[in-house]
Amino acid sequence: MIKHINVKSSVRTEFIDITGKVREALQKTGITSGICCLFVPHTTAGITINEGADPSVQRDIQTMLNRLVPFDGDYHHSEGNSEAHIKSTLTGTSQNILIDEGRLVLGRWQSIFFCEFDGPRQRRVGMKIISGG
Amino acid sequence: MIKHINVKSSVRTEFIDITGKVREALQKTGITSGICCLFVPHTTAGITINEGADPSVQRDIQTMLNRLVPFDGDYHHSEGNSEAHIKSTLTGTSQNILIDEGRLVLGRWQSIFFCEFDGPRQRRVGMKIISGG
Amino acid sequence: MIKHINVKSSVRTEFIDITGKVREALQKTGITSGICCLFVPHTTAGITINEGADPSVQRDIQTMLNRLVPFDGDYHHSEGNSEAHIKSTLTGTSQNILIDEGRLVLGRWQSIFFCEFDGPRQRRVGMKIISGG
Repeated sequence: MIKHINVKSSVRTEFIDITGKVREALQKTGITSGICCLFVPHTTAGITINEGADPSVQRDIQTMLNRLVPFDGDYHHSEGNSEAHIKSTLTGTSQNILIDEGRLVLGRWQSIFFCEFDGPRQRRVGMKIISGG
Repeated sequence: MIKHINVKSSVRTEFIDITGKVREALQKTGITSGICCLFVPHTTAGITINEGADPSVQRDIQTMLNRLVPFDGDYHHSEGNSEAHIKSTLTGTSQNILIDEGRLVLGRWQSIFFCEFDGPRQRRVGMKIISGG
Repeated sequence: MIKHINVKSSVRTEFIDITGKVREALQKTGITSGICCLFVPHTTAGITINEGADPSVQRDIQTMLNRLVPFDGDYHHSEGNSEAHIKSTLTGTSQNILIDEGRLVLGRWQSIFFCEFDGPRQRRVGMKIISGG
């Protein structure tokens, strides 16, 4: 069974913390050891794991990505969102998190962020728990 | 059992769509739920998932990577392909895709691309299906 | 069971080859087919797979990351290590390697590197082997 986590972005570039939703979905499975596989089925969004305590970190990551890959440039793709596609490749569309003793093995400062690069949109993240290990 | 997908690049920088080959290999296993793990055993290539409909997107990603990490620069590695190694780290060498109801759970616009950064070469991608979930 | 690989960095930016420790931990499990999932529980470090033979490659990757994401910049995060957080997102915090016939399926030139971006520090990498495939 696949679980879908719904995410709604409200601006063009936005990181949305989905850690709580992932934890909740994991607990419902009752699986205590394995890996949690998250997959973003979009081509202008990504997923990253980084500091959740200070929102300035998310701001700094977004600002640097915008500086490296500017909104306007010598792009050929006619939809005007090439930079969002490029950022998706740089951050990646999947993440795996270890599960041990029924919990996500995240570091103290880590949160899981859905990365919106072409919002606002209604998005979703696919999730599957593979038991083992 | 490991499955190898063979890829032949014809120029220095090239994205090659391997989605069809991955789908075909998945169907032969008969596995209906789990994850499909793809791994590139090369250090001057990568793998990414992005839009497959408009080839301009692939062109824009490659052009931006070439702008960020130019072919010539202050590189110490003597083989003259440092930029390809760097791009490999930026795109990554592995991807996991969820499998549900016997199919790869890709978004409507997503394709899986082998990223050649130091072609032309004969390459391959390792694939293993882990059932579960 | 989760296995932790301890890593001690000695400078601010440093790639540390952990391939040997991962191989050793894999052999102790006796698992012959599956995937090896590695996860870095830190927000100012990453993990990458790239050439291990010539140290110049690691130097070139680090130098380019430092050029793209400079130590000092228009950062808001007050701890002075925003660039390390950004590099963590660019390299990623997890890697999966295929296991076949009891061995990691790495390419001839590939090594697994813990990427320190805010050292020196005592760090660790989580590891779980999922059998299957």
